[in-house]
Amino acid sequence: MDENKLGGHYLQKYNEELETLRNRVLSMGGLVETQVANAVTALATADLALADDVIQNDVRVNSLEVAIDEHCSEILARHQPAASDLRFIISIIKTITDLERIGDQAEKVARMAVHLAEKDRPRNQYADVRALGEKVTRLVHDALDAFARMDVETAVNTVREDVSVDRDYETVMRQHITFMMEDPRTISRALDVIWAIRALERIGDHARNMCEYVIYLVRGKDVRHITLDELERAVQEGREMAGGKKRAPGQGEG
Amino acid sequence: MDENKLGGHYLQKYNEELETLRNRVLSMGGLVETQVANAVTALATADLALADDVIQNDVRVNSLEVAIDEHCSEILARHQPAASDLRFIISIIKTITDLERIGDQAEKVARMAVHLAEKDRPRNQYADVRALGEKVTRLVHDALDAFARMDVETAVNTVREDVSVDRDYETVMRQHITFMMEDPRTISRALDVIWAIRALERIGDHARNMCEYVIYLVRGKDVRHITLDELERAVQEGREMAGGKKRAPGQGEG
Repeated sequence: MDENKLGGHYLQKYNEELETLRNRVLSMGGLVETQVANAVTALATADLALADDVIQNDVRVNSLEVAIDEHCSEILARHQPAASDLRFIISIIKTITDLERIGDQAEKVARMAVHLAEKDRPRNQYADVRALGEKVTRLVHDALDAFARMDVETAVNTVREDVSVDRDYETVMRQHITFMMEDPRTISRALDVIWAIRALERIGDHARNMCEYVIYLVRGKDVRHITLDELERAVQEGREMAGGKKRAPGQGEG
Repeated sequence: MDENKLGGHYLQKYNEELETLRNRVLSMGGLVETQVANAVTALATADLALADDVIQNDVRVNSLEVAIDEHCSEILARHQPAASDLRFIISIIKTITDLERIGDQAEKVARMAVHLAEKDRPRNQYADVRALGEKVTRLVHDALDAFARMDVETAVNTVREDVSVDRDYETVMRQHITFMMEDPRTISRALDVIWAIRALERIGDHARNMCEYVIYLVRGKDVRHITLDELERAVQEGREMAGGKKRAPGQGEG
């Protein structure tokens, strides 16, 4: 190891760099959250201009992903971080992939909003889609919040919320299948709605992924591919083992 | 830098480790490819036992992802690879995420196969779904091949194939929407088929992602978020700049 690495100046610069990285992720996350909220509003209110904004803005989300990805590679190459900082950077590489895909799904919702704006509206005026969309937007917000504060509790609660989103999605889905069966002339509209709510459900899944990276980062325990019950147990065990003490990865420990 | 790092023994061990990592990714890829192929066959032939196999096997895909991910972190922490080896490992972290999600989609197709096995079959006996599924399976195979040989040509061709899969998907989709409109009693079946082909289309997208990592790895050029035309131009430029010489990343340059 280069002796400079232990120097105060070097360490300060390194910490600043990790902090910059974290802020870039949060600012990308803020943009993505707005994209989701706007796509949902555009669909619910048949606002074509807003839908078009969302579609145009997706390119900004994409370039943020590429830029942050490169920033991560640079930090890895330049500082060769170890331990929890390394995990922090790997989590960011994964997080921005999910954020970018949330952006893609928001764009899809906006495209469906454009299709649907030309069609008759169902009797519920898309109140169900809007409610689902708002819940999903909150999920993205909470996942980012969990990331910003490295807060395992928020992360676990958000994963739990996603399970409830999946249930709501099934309900809304069945509702629109019923509309379609009652009146086959609405099949084409119903399919657009189904694509939109499918996209919302996938956004929830990506938010869930982000929360799982936070849990992995703080607890060092890989929680992908386990059930919610197992997850809660794992986090509980982690809390007991850690004796309640909080760590903040990505704060220049590496 | 630790002087040992330059020693022949160290270098040999390091190269072996990268080679092991590469082989683990290929073996995960082989499993995932089989999952896709079996899910498609299960749907096309109403083979419940095969569908069940696919559903049961998804847990193996998931644990391979976690294990390889940890292996990558270990190598990053232990060897602090630079330059192209670092890019290689970051690409693997991304590749296995896509492989795991291909596995999830294969499982979805298998679940739809279970639903559909109980229902009347359409007049085309799912020949269209099978053809799409076989094309997508080849796509996964080719993406893995591009990764195994770090072959940009294969990667670009596979991306081009994915564009054709997307077109076929639209055709099959319209076909089943037509069935549904002609006979609304088939709506429930048609929706299951639509979920299955949607999953196949997403598998194509993940294979495309994997190819883009290969191109990034070999050409050092980020090709996500650009059109196919731009991609071909970028690769062409890269080829001219490199004067046709081939590099093999992940071969212990770092």
